[in-house]
Amino acid sequence: MASEFDLIARHFTRPAAPGQLGVGDDCALFTVPAGCQVATSTDLLLEGRHFFPDVDPAALGHKSLAVNLSDLAAMGARPLGCLLGLALPRADEAWIAPFARGFHDLAQAWQCPLIGGDTTRSGAGGLAISVTVFGAVNPDKVLRRDAAQPGDEVWVSGALGAADVAYRLLDGQLPADAARLAAARAALEWPQPRVALGLALAGVARAAIDLSDGLLQDLGHILAASRVGAELRYADLPAAPVLDGLDEPVRRRALLGGGDVYELCFTAAPADHARVRAAAAQAGVPVAAVGRIVAGVGLAVLDAAGRPLPELPGGFDHFGAAQP
Amino acid sequence: MASEFDLIARHFTRPAAPGQLGVGDDCALFTVPAGCQVATSTDLLLEGRHFFPDVDPAALGHKSLAVNLSDLAAMGARPLGCLLGLALPRADEAWIAPFARGFHDLAQAWQCPLIGGDTTRSGAGGLAISVTVFGAVNPDKVLRRDAAQPGDEVWVSGALGAADVAYRLLDGQLPADAARLAAARAALEWPQPRVALGLALAGVARAAIDLSDGLLQDLGHILAASRVGAELRYADLPAAPVLDGLDEPVRRRALLGGGDVYELCFTAAPADHARVRAAAAQAGVPVAAVGRIVAGVGLAVLDAAGRPLPELPGGFDHFGAAQP
Repeated sequence: MASEFDLIARHFTRPAAPGQLGVGDDCALFTVPAGCQVATSTDLLLEGRHFFPDVDPAALGHKSLAVNLSDLAAMGARPLGCLLGLALPRADEAWIAPFARGFHDLAQAWQCPLIGGDTTRSGAGGLAISVTVFGAVNPDKVLRRDAAQPGDEVWVSGALGAADVAYRLLDGQLPADAARLAAARAALEWPQPRVALGLALAGVARAAIDLSDGLLQDLGHILAASRVGAELRYADLPAAPVLDGLDEPVRRRALLGGGDVYELCFTAAPADHARVRAAAAQAGVPVAAVGRIVAGVGLAVLDAAGRPLPELPGGFDHFGAAQP
Repeated sequence: MASEFDLIARHFTRPAAPGQLGVGDDCALFTVPAGCQVATSTDLLLEGRHFFPDVDPAALGHKSLAVNLSDLAAMGARPLGCLLGLALPRADEAWIAPFARGFHDLAQAWQCPLIGGDTTRSGAGGLAISVTVFGAVNPDKVLRRDAAQPGDEVWVSGALGAADVAYRLLDGQLPADAARLAAARAALEWPQPRVALGLALAGVARAAIDLSDGLLQDLGHILAASRVGAELRYADLPAAPVLDGLDEPVRRRALLGGGDVYELCFTAAPADHARVRAAAAQAGVPVAAVGRIVAGVGLAVLDAAGRPLPELPGGFDHFGAAQP
């Protein structure tokens, strides 16, 4: 069986960039641009909990990094590098090679080199993956959760709901529908982090968050941190085309409560509406104005007549009630 | 059951230091001192693989951070902050509270605040813990694996072998011996990272590494990276008192091959012998000169008569042969 060190060398080591010390010392080293702070985030992904055991390893490698790059995007940070912790049931090169390729391809696309990590054998629990990313951000332009102000417009990038539909089709919660699954699956397995949009919005938008736990819950984090409320216009939410034809409760749950979405939700002053549009165009990402921040507390979703929807799906809480 | 967010707030959130943004946004933010690079390391620890399921949670919290601080120490870096990923079978506050206390106490001792992380529920695999640390290091003084030079003295801090003995007693590989276990256990469960020693050695020593995989294997990493060989004097190795009275093969395996040791092995020019002693005295850590770096390849351990020991125990490779 290949040794741990051989495997690391073969699949995870890439030449270090100037000013960096990569895989192969007690620590990796990296340089931070003058005037910038380091933004960092970590995620722990477990087989059977965060991904299906039979998922395409290349997609898993991609997504493991994508969910973390999405956190940098939500701060308006520029990626600097990443670390990978990998606990594997066995040293199965036929699995490791595509996983590493999926990971490195995305790392290269966003200039976020893998500079260190930890590889170990897992026990009965199957695969475990931890990824940590670092980025550089100008502290005067950083997008924080606590920066929303009453009167701000609420924006959402991309389209919502496809990952939720894919998950529920794969999990058997929705009746089998091969065509719909084929159309929805990429949103779940190959999410594209909005790094370019986050960079373009830094210094333009105020608060931002990604939608990994679903729109209502994640916007709720902005509202709590900023001590404000919000009204969303349900009809203006950008629904993924794959939601067409679904029953309204399923559609609504996907749009409002569906997690695993690596789009950004952000707020900006109405006076900056055109600057937001320009930033989105520069990043090549569609954005939609979907509501506004209000004084006070609470989050209302309004129908086309301006009436609050009576029943809202919850978000995702790993230790709370089961996912709706 | 308490919500994930409640648990995080109650046990893992501490007020952020000036210039930092702590737990509660997509990313944590921290500032790097001018002229310094960031040193970073991550470890993934799994129940049943890296710790026993019934380990004291306070000790586990301590050790999860200690093994990462040890990597900063081995680079001569000053801790800046850390991230914690925690996958728990359930939201068991009676376990989480002491774990968090053990973690925070060590974080506070080395001014390495917890600034972010990820909490999730684990599946059948039990507990999983990932820790990432960041430190600041002057690139001109950093201790790297590839910096050893022929003629350097090889040094080891503290004492060796106690963690290996404790592990083998707990695992039933050695006959039960309550008194010995009581004396050895702290080395396994409450290792003290040599952060102060690493800082004192920065700019004094050349190459350094911690002994998490055991002396022979870890010194071997220095030799491979520096393209040199080494000779160790077996009689000069600092054996933990708890090794007294053990059979010689058990003792030798513990000293040379025993992992989970968070002491430093480092090299320094003979002309810097007194500076090394002064650095160790400043850090309050005993150090021993145990050998020298030689040109060429290979690692020999010499007996008192200067003859190489014929059989050497291996180190620890997570995917290779079973631990000796």
